[in-house]
Amino acid sequence: MPERNLQVTLKSRPQGWVRESDFELLETPLPTIGAGEALLRTLYLSLDPYMRSRMDDAKSYAKNVDIGGVMVGGTVSEVVASNIDGLVPGEIVVSSAGWQQFSKTTGENLMRVPPGFPPSIFLGPAGMPGVTAWIGLFDIGQPKPGETVVVSAASGAVGSVVGQLAKEAGCRVVGVAGGPEKCAYVTKELGFDACIDYKRDGWIQAFKEATPDGVDVDFENVGGEVFEAVLKRTNVQARIALCGMIAGYNATEPMPLGNLRLILINRVKLQGFIVSDHLPRWPAIIRDLTMRVASGRVKYRETVATGLENAPKAFIGLLKGENFGKQLVKVA
Amino acid sequence: MPERNLQVTLKSRPQGWVRESDFELLETPLPTIGAGEALLRTLYLSLDPYMRSRMDDAKSYAKNVDIGGVMVGGTVSEVVASNIDGLVPGEIVVSSAGWQQFSKTTGENLMRVPPGFPPSIFLGPAGMPGVTAWIGLFDIGQPKPGETVVVSAASGAVGSVVGQLAKEAGCRVVGVAGGPEKCAYVTKELGFDACIDYKRDGWIQAFKEATPDGVDVDFENVGGEVFEAVLKRTNVQARIALCGMIAGYNATEPMPLGNLRLILINRVKLQGFIVSDHLPRWPAIIRDLTMRVASGRVKYRETVATGLENAPKAFIGLLKGENFGKQLVKVA
Repeated sequence: MPERNLQVTLKSRPQGWVRESDFELLETPLPTIGAGEALLRTLYLSLDPYMRSRMDDAKSYAKNVDIGGVMVGGTVSEVVASNIDGLVPGEIVVSSAGWQQFSKTTGENLMRVPPGFPPSIFLGPAGMPGVTAWIGLFDIGQPKPGETVVVSAASGAVGSVVGQLAKEAGCRVVGVAGGPEKCAYVTKELGFDACIDYKRDGWIQAFKEATPDGVDVDFENVGGEVFEAVLKRTNVQARIALCGMIAGYNATEPMPLGNLRLILINRVKLQGFIVSDHLPRWPAIIRDLTMRVASGRVKYRETVATGLENAPKAFIGLLKGENFGKQLVKVA
Repeated sequence: MPERNLQVTLKSRPQGWVRESDFELLETPLPTIGAGEALLRTLYLSLDPYMRSRMDDAKSYAKNVDIGGVMVGGTVSEVVASNIDGLVPGEIVVSSAGWQQFSKTTGENLMRVPPGFPPSIFLGPAGMPGVTAWIGLFDIGQPKPGETVVVSAASGAVGSVVGQLAKEAGCRVVGVAGGPEKCAYVTKELGFDACIDYKRDGWIQAFKEATPDGVDVDFENVGGEVFEAVLKRTNVQARIALCGMIAGYNATEPMPLGNLRLILINRVKLQGFIVSDHLPRWPAIIRDLTMRVASGRVKYRETVATGLENAPKAFIGLLKGENFGKQLVKVA
């Protein structure tokens, strides 16, 4: 057992694009645990786009990270010492330990990783990103068989699950992703009907051709130009689940949505949602997703950075779309 | 019985603001009616913001008016001759005869005006505008007692009903209107809790003070700056019924919505709707509204232009907010 805890803290609030210098790598003493507490060693850290918002001081749906505070994040951890009844060293749990090697917990909001599954899936398709996909698609999107569902960031941790769930619901599924490699994965591996590479010239025309019957459901992860293009293809009574707008996270100006008129004339429902509003429903949804992953009905892909010290670089890569599938950091 | 029918037709599609020269006043022969048809004389023509969209050739939710075609519009009419069983001369009906003195009908989509009510209310608080208010507020807004409801164009035909329905539902109701006279009417006559004059310097600050607990429901008639200000005050899980965006109807560029991010972080539901999607529900809602109007629970105000030849001018005034309450044209 080491005596020091490596942590990544927020050094400065980013102006525009995040830089590695906005983070600081610190060594602090190992946390000591008291009664009713346990010590966790981080195995995997999940990197997710929402973390960008936590670096700002603008009002958001969750508390921002303080300057000097440890970056927040979901983790898969191993119990290394425990004063909690029923939680024993060696157990693997999903937690929110943040960007650090060790953390202590009171046991609240811990989920035990069921034996026989790769633990990292509980940070991906059977974890927060998967639940996000499930809730946005089914609660807001309400796809009906034969409808056309579009999802941006289609090869990512959330988008890949959205599309596979929508395919199984009997929809035509069109992904939008950056680059031919991701698009090939989305159609050939994940089984989407089409995938549009938004980095290619003429992609808007290609998107139009890929949605001959218009768009009934949009699961929006990106915002910006991609969103505008999708909005123009919406059918009457289309539903848009606004999950993220990664294209705007590093913008210093509010991101405009042109064509508000289309929302009116097509009677579109545009609804923002946050997966943590639905915590009581997570366990059932995670069970459903776990079975889908285990049976191969939901496929997934991971990009794993090694070592906590590489988390900032990997996170910046995620915001730029350099990752492929779920971005993880192998910490221990 | 005259032999000529005065009509207002669309002469040219407006570029930006509508001008009187975009309309043409024509005299045509009186329509002749065949079997199963009736001849109607227009008593009142309703002028409504949606008509602006019908003058464009852009795709919208309803067929646009052709160049040379009679402008569309709801009317209260008198049956002057009838070959329809059960429809007799002298009866007063609500119809969609458009901007003309006489029209013929097959009896489809006619509503008989019940005796004992001023017929013009069926073009206002107990007609299409009232049903619009009802559906947008209750279906999309779903106001709960104690919540704050905001409505723009608050003294108008739709906004005035929205606010009064919301007050009766136990909400705090804040209107936005143009000018002190309209605002005084909205608070003193209609009973809103507050009304903000958006033409006044410092109105955004005044709006903030009038919504100390934020905004839970927005019934949006205007778009633009007013909408932006409301969006900034939205609470978590706020609902926005997008009914119109009169501020943008004469814009030549798509109207942007800044702060899409707020829709995400506040999990706002923004939903466009069109009252004609809900035709089967109109009769029941109209009965409800008629009783509210008759009992004085829903008050209303009308601006009446006299003579069909003055309809274009009155319509342009409506788009500029020069009317007060429901804008009508007394045709016969």
